Amino acid sequence: MTGTLYGIGVGPGDPELLTLKAVRLLRACPVIAYPETGADTGLARRIAAPHIPPGRIELALPMPIRPDPAAARAAHDRAAERLATQLAAGRDVAALCLGDPLLYASFQYLLARLHGRFPTRVVPGVTSLSAAAAAAGQALAGRDEVLAVVPATLPEAVLAARLAAADSAAILKPGRHLAKLRRVLAGLGRLETARHVARASQQAERIRPLAELADDETEYFAIILVPPRGTAGKESP
Amino acid sequence: MTGTLYGIGVGPGDPELLTLKAVRLLRACPVIAYPETGADTGLARRIAAPHIPPGRIELALPMPIRPDPAAARAAHDRAAERLATQLAAGRDVAALCLGDPLLYASFQYLLARLHGRFPTRVVPGVTSLSAAAAAAGQALAGRDEVLAVVPATLPEAVLAARLAAADSAAILKPGRHLAKLRRVLAGLGRLETARHVARASQQAERIRPLAELADDETEYFAIILVPPRGTAGKESP
Repeated sequence: MTGTLYGIGVGPGDPELLTLKAVRLLRACPVIAYPETGADTGLARRIAAPHIPPGRIELALPMPIRPDPAAARAAHDRAAERLATQLAAGRDVAALCLGDPLLYASFQYLLARLHGRFPTRVVPGVTSLSAAAAAAGQALAGRDEVLAVVPATLPEAVLAARLAAADSAAILKPGRHLAKLRRVLAGLGRLETARHVARASQQAERIRPLAELADDETEYFAIILVPPRGTAGKESP
Repeated sequence: MTGTLYGIGVGPGDPELLTLKAVRLLRACPVIAYPETGADTGLARRIAAPHIPPGRIELALPMPIRPDPAAARAAHDRAAERLATQLAAGRDVAALCLGDPLLYASFQYLLARLHGRFPTRVVPGVTSLSAAAAAAGQALAGRDEVLAVVPATLPEAVLAARLAAADSAAILKPGRHLAKLRRVLAGLGRLETARHVARASQQAERIRPLAELADDETEYFAIILVPPRGTAGKESP
């Protein structure tokens, strides 16, 4: 009897945005694993903490945020084998993921390595996109609108083309890319309505117009919301 | 003292995908409102039901899914005024939304009408996109990939352009548009890996290759997942 691997979305930061399903599995799984990254070590663990009984086996998995591909593969291989050891011993593993396990999270790489070898299940979570929209009171998309979810790490020309092809956008990972983003959005006539949402749903949540930020005033976990043309502040019908 | 309007995401269908915050507010709010639509009348209400104490004021809000703009505005005006009556009487209102309140949900139109007149708060929820990805074990996006969220209701040429500008896509509202979607995805060389996920997270959940469906085998609440090129079934690093 092998254990089951559960990828568990713990949401964007507010501990109340855990789902009932996540809470049930956190209480039941004998092994709790979570990513250990530079920017936000332990946030997923802190969100889940009130629901983890004492005495669980805990695995902190090193997951560098911007590694080279070979280093990333090696880190994912090592993490997957640590989980495999527990699963092979018959223990269910809860792998914690900030936000949702299958949207810009490293869980997908563990799933690719362990799916087929062990039973796997994914418990979806509230994303930082939804939390940013909630904080700003700004719809991500409606009706026939196309929403693009775009990493700010892309080259300037690619960013411009991707954003031009959508009605609204949520831009992730703005850290170190603010000046480039402002140029791109200004070129598309979209800078004035764009807002920078930091730490959505967390105590330190802060919403500011993108145009007013200094180039060094962002952080890795912020999100920039670009509303559909003509709808910022009023959304009819 | 006026009441507060809470837009509450109740998630994609599985009652366990409610958040702790949604449960707390459902128990506390004296007024519960929910959309009454053709396709899925009462699903949001059924998800929330175990957490609604007896004797609450309940408002079923008619929200036609594909109305003409003038009819939509009138329906949203009427719904907003029914909520305003409760809020003005000092009662907090929990407005239930399938998935997330600010992603393709009618709550945004109520929020636009009532924000400023009354205190408003949005409680984000698990989206049907995340639920579809979890069901299929297929990441929505990772690393530097761009995800497009695209309503199938768009004209064929627009759909093709929007999908061509993204690495992966989640296509909403495929009902009546399957033949068009298949032509567009085949033209982009993306049909073979696309999957149709119906009723994600619900009892009737079903995942099938899009290429194998008959034109009348979809339903309004299904989602089509188009994975990034070259990554279907294997996701490295």
